[in-house]
Amino acid sequence: MQEFELIGKVFRQATYAQAGGAVEQSIGDDCALIRVPDGHRLCVSTDSLLAGVHFPWPCDPFLLGQRALAVAVSDLAACGAEPLAFTLALSLPQPDSAWLEAFSRGLAQMAAQCAIRLAGGDTTAGPLNIGITVMGSVPAGQALLRSCARDGELLYVSGPLGAAAAALPLFTDPPPFLAEAVRCPLLQAFWQPQPQLALGYWLRGKAGAVIDISDGLLADAGHIAAESGVQLQIHAQQLPLAGAAVQADAAQALQWALAGGDDYQLLFSLSSVHAAELAQLFPQARCIGRVSTGQGVQLLDACGHALPVEQRGYQHFS
Amino acid sequence: MQEFELIGKVFRQATYAQAGGAVEQSIGDDCALIRVPDGHRLCVSTDSLLAGVHFPWPCDPFLLGQRALAVAVSDLAACGAEPLAFTLALSLPQPDSAWLEAFSRGLAQMAAQCAIRLAGGDTTAGPLNIGITVMGSVPAGQALLRSCARDGELLYVSGPLGAAAAALPLFTDPPPFLAEAVRCPLLQAFWQPQPQLALGYWLRGKAGAVIDISDGLLADAGHIAAESGVQLQIHAQQLPLAGAAVQADAAQALQWALAGGDDYQLLFSLSSVHAAELAQLFPQARCIGRVSTGQGVQLLDACGHALPVEQRGYQHFS
Repeated sequence: MQEFELIGKVFRQATYAQAGGAVEQSIGDDCALIRVPDGHRLCVSTDSLLAGVHFPWPCDPFLLGQRALAVAVSDLAACGAEPLAFTLALSLPQPDSAWLEAFSRGLAQMAAQCAIRLAGGDTTAGPLNIGITVMGSVPAGQALLRSCARDGELLYVSGPLGAAAAALPLFTDPPPFLAEAVRCPLLQAFWQPQPQLALGYWLRGKAGAVIDISDGLLADAGHIAAESGVQLQIHAQQLPLAGAAVQADAAQALQWALAGGDDYQLLFSLSSVHAAELAQLFPQARCIGRVSTGQGVQLLDACGHALPVEQRGYQHFS
Repeated sequence: MQEFELIGKVFRQATYAQAGGAVEQSIGDDCALIRVPDGHRLCVSTDSLLAGVHFPWPCDPFLLGQRALAVAVSDLAACGAEPLAFTLALSLPQPDSAWLEAFSRGLAQMAAQCAIRLAGGDTTAGPLNIGITVMGSVPAGQALLRSCARDGELLYVSGPLGAAAAALPLFTDPPPFLAEAVRCPLLQAFWQPQPQLALGYWLRGKAGAVIDISDGLLADAGHIAAESGVQLQIHAQQLPLAGAAVQADAAQALQWALAGGDDYQLLFSLSSVHAAELAQLFPQARCIGRVSTGQGVQLLDACGHALPVEQRGYQHFS
């Protein structure tokens, strides 16, 4: 398909220097061939992004390409996997080579940053739909899961929360005056989330449960609690609120951090024996609570009293 | 997501008996975990199917589920790969549990037939879009490619051609009288194509070039000719025309076989030393010509004269 040839061409320009990697055969045959190291497991995740649902429309295709791949690779980080390759299934209303070229450059930039290669794909004429399947590898038995949190572990997030959610009003109902120094980091958080791959590798063999925060802190904490059969206690005043979110609306910042998705930080449980090494290697990570027996998620104030929790996550068709 | 839980539930009912297979961890975590045998390569292919482009709409969701997966698995057959797992990225305009359940049963039935497992996926609200990524494994160095046809090899198709293309008028402009004995095999060819997996395994280490016929015989032969740097000579009178296509319209049957896609038979080149074994193991396969030096595809009549070729393949946005 001609569109895919264009995407392939942009990719070859951007990333062919990485030949000799995991992808042995890519665009141009019935299947791509990918080398998964012996003794490893393949990690796979699929995401669909739709205009108006997962990103504002119209938008900058370069930024969209960056975000689409980052969101998908974040699932590999949450498993502790090393990225190998991804496929792209792109439906587009009409051919637009300038749009495709910018989108491809955004994808290629994020691909280079994450050391992941485009292995193949499919382009069809239809309503805009970006389907990305990412593949990575992890040593057998070392994949990070949601189901392994244990009573007594500490609970961490990998970095500041709330900036991506604070960017959403800029698309729908932009405030008349907002300094560039606030606007830019909010938009960057939304369009260029950074998959926490290095932290994912480090957590192998150390973490209890791990998840990437895509639906919002409380919702994703709820997933860990349910899958692990534990209670998570989160101290509201320990949350690392994104500075730009506080500057944009101090009264809203906590709510953005609790319920806003799109930050793609990792939420994980970890024994305190690893706390010092974590602080040294990943200084942005913050302890926000602990794992205990029970169920669900408890949000606590500075005095240790439970705060009312309005659990909100992304639910389609609701 | 609730829709995916429904799909997962239908799948568990239909295929959980195959536990202990390649999929170690599926729906319910950030990634699925899949075991790729040591010394093998991962084969990956992605397809998007859109209503009105790749299938008529409205249509029977059970049949659609069968076809969507069969079309994708056919790419694994063309590589000689053994199916491991697939992911599903499904966009749906609105929740409809009866539709989803029937679609899932169709998928599950084809999955059982191909011994492939659902590993995970994503469901979103949007215009109907079925994205399937299939994964399989093949011993390193043994993947079947389009680029390995050699001068002197014979050219084969794995079975009858033209029935799926002959089904298309039934959706758009149904003939007033057509016997059930003709209609049914045409519709079956379109909705339930059979991925030629066993033939793909057998061709490993034997075939020159291999492709699955999705765009039409002439177009796909053109891909082999271009990728291998050879000429393919096809004898029109040797083509195995599907009986039901001939019965539906004898004057059209050759054109359907040459230019119609959707049959998902394999087209492959093979040394004559394997001809007897092929005939014994895969009696539906037919020799339709040979590979020679030169370029492109030549269609020959009974006297060996070149016939005019109107190369047609599926091209998006044209």
